[in-house]
Parts: sequence; structure tokens; C-alpha cells
Amino acid sequence: MTGPMSDKPDFLRTAVEPFRVEPGADARSVLERMERISFQGRNLAAAHRLWQRMLRDRLTIFLGIAGALTAGGLRLAIAYLIEHRYVDCLVSTGANLYHDLHEIRGRHHYVGRPKVDDAMLQRERIDRVYDTFAREDEFADNDRWIAGFAASLEPRAYTTREFLYELGRRLDSETGQDGILTAAARASVPIYCPAIADSSIGMGLSQARHLDPGAGHIDVIGDIIESANVVSRSAGTASIVLGGGTPKNFINQASVQAEFFDARVDGHRYALQIVTDAPHFGGASGSTLEEAQSWGKLAPDAARVSVCADATLALPLLASALATSVPDPRTQRDVPEFRICGSRLTLDGSPVPGNRYLASE
Amino acid sequence: MTGPMSDKPDFLRTAVEPFRVEPGADARSVLERMERISFQGRNLAAAHRLWQRMLRDRLTIFLGIAGALTAGGLRLAIAYLIEHRYVDCLVSTGANLYHDLHEIRGRHHYVGRPKVDDAMLQRERIDRVYDTFAREDEFADNDRWIAGFAASLEPRAYTTREFLYELGRRLDSETGQDGILTAAARASVPIYCPAIADSSIGMGLSQARHLDPGAGHIDVIGDIIESANVVSRSAGTASIVLGGGTPKNFINQASVQAEFFDARVDGHRYALQIVTDAPHFGGASGSTLEEAQSWGKLAPDAARVSVCADATLALPLLASALATSVPDPRTQRDVPEFRICGSRLTLDGSPVPGNRYLASE
Amino acid sequence: MTGPMSDKPDFLRTAVEPFRVEPGADARSVLERMERISFQGRNLAAAHRLWQRMLRDRLTIFLGIAGALTAGGLRLAIAYLIEHRYVDCLVSTGANLYHDLHEIRGRHHYVGRPKVDDAMLQRERIDRVYDTFAREDEFADNDRWIAGFAASLEPRAYTTREFLYELGRRLDSETGQDGILTAAARASVPIYCPAIADSSIGMGLSQARHLDPGAGHIDVIGDIIESANVVSRSAGTASIVLGGGTPKNFINQASVQAEFFDARVDGHRYALQIVTDAPHFGGASGSTLEEAQSWGKLAPDAARVSVCADATLALPLLASALATSVPDPRTQRDVPEFRICGSRLTLDGSPVPGNRYLASE
Amino acid sequence: MTGPMSDKPDFLRTAVEPFRVEPGADARSVLERMERISFQGRNLAAAHRLWQRMLRDRLTIFLGIAGALTAGGLRLAIAYLIEHRYVDCLVSTGANLYHDLHEIRGRHHYVGRPKVDDAMLQRERIDRVYDTFAREDEFADNDRWIAGFAASLEPRAYTTREFLYELGRRLDSETGQDGILTAAARASVPIYCPAIADSSIGMGLSQARHLDPGAGHIDVIGDIIESANVVSRSAGTASIVLGGGTPKNFINQASVQAEFFDARVDGHRYALQIVTDAPHFGGASGSTLEEAQSWGKLAPDAARVSVCADATLALPLLASALATSVPDPRTQRDVPEFRICGSRLTLDGSPVPGNRYLASE
Repeated sequence: MTGPMSDKPDFLRTAVEPFRVEPGADARSVLERMERISFQGRNLAAAHRLWQRMLRDRLTIFLGIAGALTAGGLRLAIAYLIEHRYVDCLVSTGANLYHDLHEIRGRHHYVGRPKVDDAMLQRERIDRVYDTFAREDEFADNDRWIAGFAASLEPRAYTTREFLYELGRRLDSETGQDGILTAAARASVPIYCPAIADSSIGMGLSQARHLDPGAGHIDVIGDIIESANVVSRSAGTASIVLGGGTPKNFINQASVQAEFFDARVDGHRYALQIVTDAPHFGGASGSTLEEAQSWGKLAPDAARVSVCADATLALPLLASALATSVPDPRTQRDVPEFRICGSRLTLDGSPVPGNRYLASE
Repeated sequence: MTGPMSDKPDFLRTAVEPFRVEPGADARSVLERMERISFQGRNLAAAHRLWQRMLRDRLTIFLGIAGALTAGGLRLAIAYLIEHRYVDCLVSTGANLYHDLHEIRGRHHYVGRPKVDDAMLQRERIDRVYDTFAREDEFADNDRWIAGFAASLEPRAYTTREFLYELGRRLDSETGQDGILTAAARASVPIYCPAIADSSIGMGLSQARHLDPGAGHIDVIGDIIESANVVSRSAGTASIVLGGGTPKNFINQASVQAEFFDARVDGHRYALQIVTDAPHFGGASGSTLEEAQSWGKLAPDAARVSVCADATLALPLLASALATSVPDPRTQRDVPEFRICGSRLTLDGSPVPGNRYLASE
Repeated sequence: MTGPMSDKPDFLRTAVEPFRVEPGADARSVLERMERISFQGRNLAAAHRLWQRMLRDRLTIFLGIAGALTAGGLRLAIAYLIEHRYVDCLVSTGANLYHDLHEIRGRHHYVGRPKVDDAMLQRERIDRVYDTFAREDEFADNDRWIAGFAASLEPRAYTTREFLYELGRRLDSETGQDGILTAAARASVPIYCPAIADSSIGMGLSQARHLDPGAGHIDVIGDIIESANVVSRSAGTASIVLGGGTPKNFINQASVQAEFFDARVDGHRYALQIVTDAPHFGGASGSTLEEAQSWGKLAPDAARVSVCADATLALPLLASALATSVPDPRTQRDVPEFRICGSRLTLDGSPVPGNRYLASE
Repeated sequence: MTGPMSDKPDFLRTAVEPFRVEPGADARSVLERMERISFQGRNLAAAHRLWQRMLRDRLTIFLGIAGALTAGGLRLAIAYLIEHRYVDCLVSTGANLYHDLHEIRGRHHYVGRPKVDDAMLQRERIDRVYDTFAREDEFADNDRWIAGFAASLEPRAYTTREFLYELGRRLDSETGQDGILTAAARASVPIYCPAIADSSIGMGLSQARHLDPGAGHIDVIGDIIESANVVSRSAGTASIVLGGGTPKNFINQASVQAEFFDARVDGHRYALQIVTDAPHFGGASGSTLEEAQSWGKLAPDAARVSVCADATLALPLLASALATSVPDPRTQRDVPEFRICGSRLTLDGSPVPGNRYLASE
């Protein structure tokens, strides 16, 4: 039995090291022993490594969330990432924020099943998200609550960032409950929601106009400008995306748009995505991080990892490992500090304009 | 050799009939011979049948388009469906409209390949969408053109429906070229774009504010109200979705929201989707039409077909067959007639409010 | 409105040409107008072009079929490809041949549905393949028939190629029905079934030993040798794969094994696959044709096309177009001529050994 | 802020409980906190629970492995499951055993990357499996070694179970290294490989005939009979499948075939699969466990869990958790005891015939 023949220099440097099962191993140890296996297991381990590197660099870290992650039980994991500043700025679909609000308000989603008589569910007024159920009357009550909240604000146009901050503060003061919206409000982490019109939050906002025609006005174009200015005012940026969708593109767009007005911006320095879509159908959710490079969304030498997996399976392991590797980034990182005062946002003390593009000095 | 034993009544009524190859067969004949095979082939054939049924009923037919369908070569097929009124109302991602505008303005996308050095593309300022290339400088020129166009409008907030109609008219008068935007403007087919902030059209709008701080204001919440009122003013509705994404949910949301204010609305009567996502990750794009029923998005007895396929493969065959089965629906259907006059929309002569929900009389 | 700016030489040569809908268009015309669109639609059009090129070259064309294609209604399309010699040698899963035998014997598969109470189906003795049903008692009858047939053969070990040829001949003489097995027997097209032990044909063979302990002996290793010798005796080879699985690898393995013993063999010259699996999980079905090149399965300059689609959707369009483009290859190609006489196979008059590797002279 | 309204009895019993991140949590604790989230995360947690139940019941537990799991770094995890008797009988593709042999013989697979010039790899004689590399000359050496080993055996037909046991014993005595083949040989855990002809082990066997025409004869039909008799001699059976493919169907087929001859057999009592394929294309790998029920492959009341994930991502977490929950099943379970003596297999002392079906007494 001979050992391996002489290595070929470029391609055969690092041997696959089979994963060894160890009873009692913690999440970090499991993930670290996956670093030299193959396929998506290796990619998840590489994601852990990459996120650690991001936390050591001076960066504004964007997190995008799409898919039914909060109805599906990841809302407190995401709130944890916000609270402890594993991330600095959130971009979300409306649905993820809506289902977070639902639980912050004391309601629940329920463990259901995918194979069920949906006509019966409809009669019972139960809404289904794959294997998860919720009560339609509670959703209608949320919509009315959102309408009332929106109508209680000064009647003018709000960016989603401003509106969602006010929403988070109100939820926090009314309930004191943990969640994405409340964690972000407490930590002054901005939230952008580019497709708010395609969600129940948008529906609630539209109902606000019944209460007051001047209510429920949202300035989504202002979000574009402000988010690009966040990029140009940051020492560097990173993109972490769970699930693709509008958040993925919006985070990349902020970088492209910033570069347009500020030559020093050069694309995100790090990119990490956990998606289930494949690239070969041409959709944005499944597009590769290499493709993002062709657009200048990522820096030419950006470090990047893509994991093809359901986030409900990948994030619990990844976040548990990361919480062990880097216990509380707030105390260890050079955390970018946002302050939110109505329509005005500042980053590390300097204003981030929402009405026009201004290169940072 | 005996024939089949006596049939079991409920499950074994219709035998699979193997597809027979016939040289020279037209698209309709191919698709009709796929009706009694299995899997996604059968589903595409059923989609053809279902669309024909929609065209015989009195309906407002929504078409949602997501994914890079127009960069990918389907823009004139979609324009054909609009022009001949196989569909009545469009809901689109911003990207699909942007890439349509790009070609209407006389530019091109290019046949590329997925395996390429993206860093080199970036240096060459070529943007990649999977296997398709485009020139970044032409995109930047589009953005400026959109900014200029937006700044030329009266400075006030526009729903995407109003803005996109004006955009289509301007493109038509400037170029006379065929495309989705121009076909919709000519036919007064409304277009909604709920996630316009997540697209290059949104970027162009944001740049308009440099030219005029009062320009580039978009009222996406108004779109929610108006689209729901379109549903409640329609004799019935159908949903056709290519690719999922925000258009899929927005079309369903319009029905749910309409029902909230008008008890006679009861969900879409027909639903047809061609998507590549699987349902088991919980995302909206892959969600089944049965799941949509639990939410009341579809009528309890809605006819529905879901096809799991890339639209670039499925639509050419489906649209070619449909154009043969139902040659020019404009002349055969009871076509719902929209008229667009600035912020006001009428359907079959009655106004469709965009500022509040009103049940139809 | 200006035209496109000056082209960049390498990447921007060929513009995407949007698909135009034409009523009455035949399959070939539909597919040819898909050649300059994007994504999987373009790939299917390229597959059509590639298959035409194969038919003009001097080649032995292998066809691999996996997945429930014959239960799913493609068996007569595949028989058409065999009969008219669009392909020359078949590699199949056992299930595809078994379900073909089922219909050749006058039984049926039935149009079912995927969402059904499977416990009830089990009580009714109905077997389900996704949306397709069949009767369990008819399957049990097939198994007995196969056992009886196998026991009627001279008791010795048979390669699957020899056994399946005898099976096809028996079915043809008993029924005269069209099918894959009968078309292949009539045209002396060899069929290999490397995983015959994982199928109901294997179960039937195992039951033959109850009738005669010397019956039901299959020499799958002989198939490996013979198929590699087919490659080394061919002027050149091509691989067409529907669905991946064991046929995909077996066809590639034949080429690798042939090269081992015959330096003139240099991998398949053409490769075409229509699969639904993605490459990023590391499985063989989803592996790319580029990966196959690293193994020497394909010639370094092999022409290749991969389509990500369900074959029930893609093959009807592709085969219809091909039957129009190249009406009857038997009369136009330099068809490799197999003769089968028991365990002996000849190709163009020279023997193809099944017991040892022999380079062709 | 009100609490949830009164529950609806049937559907809303168990609330989703969001996953909470805990630094230092071990794999078991992570997985247990995923039990009340949604989608594939919940399914993996349910798989953990189900496997624990299997280990408490009196069962023969089959494990099927397909896809490049051993090249991809899971071989020692699978060996661990065999050694500690989390499973009792293995069904594998040939490739998984071949890549295990490769490392047992002291060679390696290497950490590679998917985006690489495959033509260059071919020139360098490096074979690629997605993101993993290996040396072609070492593979050729393995093939010769297998040929030599096969030629050293008494010249007669071997079932794969007998051949693979002898192979494992030889590897163990020559190398003493851990691996799947050696762990199974040491523990007398039978291995079946129904598609051995579609693998490099098959290629090695075919080369054995050059050394001795009587060598390299494999009786895959005998495997069918013996595996069915294992089922009928077991107190009950369970099926665990990683990756689908021929092992998935072979394990189910054993149950169906056993039932045919022994009315007391009633399908597997437990079924657990971790696959990446979706059901809607009709292929066997993606088929649901419900579909398996219609065929009688599973008991009508079988407990079952299906996880849609890459095994390289799911198994490390699952096996680590299981090793913590049930530390060493050998000492806790009523382990079914196999003994292998040449072509004869016994289970708990009674013979398992390989040449005919015999109901257990």
C-alpha cells in the first residue's frame, strides 16, 4: 500500500479530510471539521470563516433576508445577529417584517404540514406557508393596527427606513418584545424594504389612507439614494444574503449606485449568500457572486462564499458556530454607528443624505 | 396478451397516451399531443388548455413577469400577448421593464456564456446575466435618459402604473419600436411595478432628484389600492405568472385586498404559473397554487395549472400554440377596456380609484 | 435615439434576438427562433442544432434514458428515435424498460395526480409515479411473465444486452406492438441496462430462479467490456442523455474504459444532456459536461450542450423539430450497423467481444 | 396588545418556536431547538428524532448512499454509523465504495473548485467531482488492484454482498485503515451494490477477466433475492437514504419483493431520506415517501421524514447530534446480528438464502 504519488503543484495541495463524528461536539467544532469536505457542507464551513473575517475588518455589513424566514422560525436568530452587531444594516422583504410584527404583537405561527386540504383551511380561515399555519383574523387585525399606526404619524412621505424605525420603536414601547423590528430600533440598525408595496405592511399602509388620505405615503426612491450614501460613507461594505429576492439586488444596487457618484467606492469587499435557487435559469436570486462581479457589485478581489441550502437548515448551525467563535462583536469590532432622527440618518457622526447623492469627503 | 383488467372507477379512467413524433407538426399540435403524457410536459399542455378557457370567460387577466425574461429574449413574445390581448394587465419587476426599454432605445443584449472570467468582464465594462451580456455604458446612458424623462414630468408623486404609462408613451413617440412598454401604452394595458425601487428604473428615478428635487417621487402604496380596485371592478380575474417574485404575490394581494372591502370578490378564478422554484423551501416564488387557496387568493373552485420550467423554454412553445388555437383574442373576447388619463384609470367606463378602496356598485 | 455603440470585439458579437410568436409555426421553426434567446430556451435550440450535426458525422450515437420517461409517455418518441436511427445504442434504467414492456403487453399507465391519499391508493393496489397511476396486479403479472420468459431461455449467464434483445424479440413476436424494446429488437439496436438489479425486470429475473435455479443469471460485467468495445470499434461516438442516472455514467464509462485499452479512443465527440439536477450537490446526474471532460469522457474539443429541463417537456418539442429537420436519418446517415446473434455482437461486420478488451485493428 | 385568540382545535395546536442562538451549544442542542421551526430545518430536526426512535425499536436499519458522498468527505461519518451500529445493512452506489477504497489505500481526494479549466485538468490527468479533485493515475492503479484482487478469488459468480465483504476484509488486512468497506467487514454489516456495473469497481472487475476469464463474475440477481430475504427475516425494517439513486429503490424493492413471498412483511416501518431532488419531475430520487406508500414500500402507518438538503451539509450536524443523543447503539439496541461466511449469510442465527425466496418460519 503506497502513499499518494508526488503531488501536482497547483491543484492537489489540500487533501479532503473526512468529517469525523464526535459526540458532544459544539456547533463551531462541527462546522470547523466541515472545512475540508466538499460541496455545500464545505461551503457552509467557508461561510463561517468568511463571516469571522468580515467581523475583523472595518466594514458596514448588510444583511438581506427573503423567503418566509421569520414565519419559519428564524426571527430571533436574526434579531440576535442585529443586537450583537454581527450585521449593521438590514434589507428585508415586507413579509419577513410583517411576520415578525405578528409575533412581536403576541401572536403565533403554527407548526402545520404541507399536504393538507387547502380548501378546508380557507374555510377555517387559516393561511398556509408551506408547512406553517397562521390565523387570517389575526393577520387582518395586524393590518388594521399598521393602518392605525401609519395614520398616527405626521402626514408626509417616509422612506421605508424611517417608517420601519418608527414602527420598531412603537412596537418596542407597546410590547417590549424581542424581534427583528424591535432589535433594529434599539440598536439603531437601519432597515430598508424596497418591495414594501408587495406585502401586508403595504396593505396596512394602503388602509391608512382610509383613515387619512395624507397617511401611508412611502418614498421608496429616497431609500435608493440613502442606501447608496450609506455605502459611500462606509469604510468598506459586505453583503450577506439569505434567500435572494429584492434584498439581494437592493444591496448590490446600493454599491453600484454609490460607485456612480463616488469613484472611491469599488463594490462590496465580502459577499456571502445562502440561497436555494440555481443560476442556470437567469433569475437574480440564483445568480452567482461571480456574475455580481461583472456588474461591479463586488470588488474585483472580493472574498465570497455561496451556499446552496435552505436558510432554516443552514442558519441555526452557522449562527450558533459564529456566536461561539466571535462571542459578542459589539465589544470586539469597530462597529459602524448609525443614529436615526426622523428622516435624518447619520453614520459615525456624518449625515447620510436621502435626497441626493453626495460623495463622502 | 390480454388487455387491461377491469378499470378501477375513480383513479384509472384516462390512460397515458404516449407522445407520437410527427414531422412538420405545428406548436399547437405538439402541445395537444402532450396532454395525456406526465409530469411537466403534461402540465404545459394543461396550461395551454387553461389559457384558452380564460379567453372564453369574462375576465381581467393579469400577467406577472419576474426573472430576466426580457434580457433573455421574451420581450416581444410578451408584447405580442399584450397587443393581441391574451392578457389585460401586467405586473412586472423593474428589471424586465428596464431591459425592454434598453432594446426599445435601440440597444442590445448579447449572446454570451455562463463560464467566463467575470473580473475581465468587469474590466471590459460588460455586465452578465447568466449567459447573456450587455454594455455597462449603455446601461448608464439609459439611467440618465430615465432621470431626464422623470425630471420632465410635472413634479408630483406618481403611481408606477401612471409613470410607466407615460414612459411607454414617450418611448413610443421617440422610437416607434415594439416592446412591452410601448405595446402596453398603445393598448392602454396598465403596468404595475411594486418593487420599482429595486431596479435600474428606480436608480434612474433617484438620479432625477439631482435634476429636480421634486422629481422621481413614486407612490407605490397607491398602486396597491388601484390594483385591488381593478379586481373589484372586474367581472372576474385570472392570474398568469412567469417566474414568481414580487409580481406573483402582488397579483394575489390585489385579490385578497379587494375581498377585504368587497365581499363579492372571491379570489382569482384561474391561476397559471410557470416557475422554477420548488415549494419545499417556503419561498413565495415556489409556493403552490393550493397554498394560495388557503389565503383566499384563489377562488375555492379556481382552475389552476402549475408548470415547473424555465419560461424561456416553456413560453415560446406555449405562446406559439396559443396564437394558433386562439388567433387574435381582441376580436373574439369580451376584452376589458382600460383607459388611462394621468392619475385616473377607468375600466369599462367606470373609474378605478387609486386613493381609497371602493367596492364596485 | 442612437443605435448601439461600437461593439467590443470578443464578447458582443451576436445580439439576442427576441422570440417572435408566429401562429401556425411548426416545431422546427419555433426551436430555430429560440436560438438567439437566453437560458434554457437557447440551450434546447442549441441541442437541436447539435443533434443535427451528430447525424451528419460518422458516429455511433448512444442514448441514455433515466427517470420515469416511459411511464410518463415518452416511450413511443424514444422508439421513433431508435426506429429511424436518430440514435444507435440505448442505455436505460430497468424501470424505463419495464414500463415499456407493460404497455407493449397491452396494459396502461393512467393520468393521475400528485396530491392524493397514498394510503388509499395502497388499499386500492394502485401504484403512483408522481402524477401517474398503474395497477399493482398488472405489475405482478408482468413480473411473472418475465420470470417465465427468463426461465424459457437456455440456462446460462446473459449480458443485459443479450437478454434484452431476446426479450424484445419475444415481445415483438407475441404482440407486434410498438415500443422501445420492440423497436430496438427490430433495428438490432443494442440496449444496455447496468442497474437491471434495481428494477422490476430484476425482480422478475429473481423469480425465474424459483422456476429454474439455473435461470435469471445476468452478466453485468460483460456489458462493461462489450460497451467499451463498441466505442473502440466506432468511427466516433456521441452521448445523448435524458435524465442522468446510471445510463449517463455508463455511457461515459464505456469511453473511458475503451481509451484505457485503445489509445486511439479519445472521448465522445459530442455530448448532449437534458437533466433536471444542478451540479452543485456533486451528484453524477447533475454533473456538467465540462466536468466530464476532466475525466476524459469527452474529447477535448467535444461539442456539447446541456439543457436543464424535464424531458417530458423538452423532448416532444426537440424530437418534433428534429423529425422535421432530418426526416429519416436511416436514409441519410452512414448508419452504424449492429448485428446481434446470441451472445455475439457485430458492428459494421466486425465482432465486438464481450469477454475481453481488444483494441480495434 | 392581546394574546392569541382562541385556538382552532385541529390545526393550531403547536406554535412555531423561533430558534434561539446559544453560544457553545452542541449539535444535539442546536438540532433540538430546530424542532419547532419550519421548512427543511424542521425536517432535519425531525430526522434526528425519528432515527432515535428507530434505534429503540427492534429493526434492521438499511442505509442507502448515493451521490459523491465519500469523495466528498462523509466516508468516516458513514463508517462511524456502521461501526457503532446506527445502521445494520448498507446499499451503495459503486462510486461511493470506490472512492472509499481509494482513501483506504492511502490516496486522497483534494479540495478543488468548480470553476476551472477542465481541458487543462484533463491534460494534467486530474479528475474533477464538482469542487473536488483526484489523480487519474491513482484511479488507474486502483482499477488494476481491484482486477488483481478479483482474479485472486475462486473463479465463480459472487453476489455484490459476498464480493464486497471479501474486498473489505482484504483491504482491512492489507491496510488496517478505517473506511466504509473495512468498517462493514469488521462488523459483518452486509453491503449491496446493485449498480456495480456502473462504476469503477465494475471496471476493475471487467479487467479481471483479462487476467482470468473466469474472474469478475457478479450475480446481481442473487442480491435481489438475498436482500428480500433479509427483510422477511427481520423483526421489522427501516430505510434511511442519503441522496436517492439506485440504493433508494433497491431498499424499497427488497421490501416489496419480500412482501410478495411473505404476507407478514408489510413495508418498512420507518423511512428517512435526505435528498436534493424535487418530486415534480417524476424521478425516483426525488419521489416522496408518500408515493412510496402507494407501492407498499412503506407500512401504511410508517413514520417518515424527508429532508431536502445536500447530505454534506445535513449529515455532519445530524450524525453529531445523534452520537450525542444515543452514544453507542451497539450497547443499547437489540442489534440484528449478521454473519457472513462466503456466499452464506445468516441473520440472528438463521440462514438468509440467496438463491430462492423463502418466507421466514
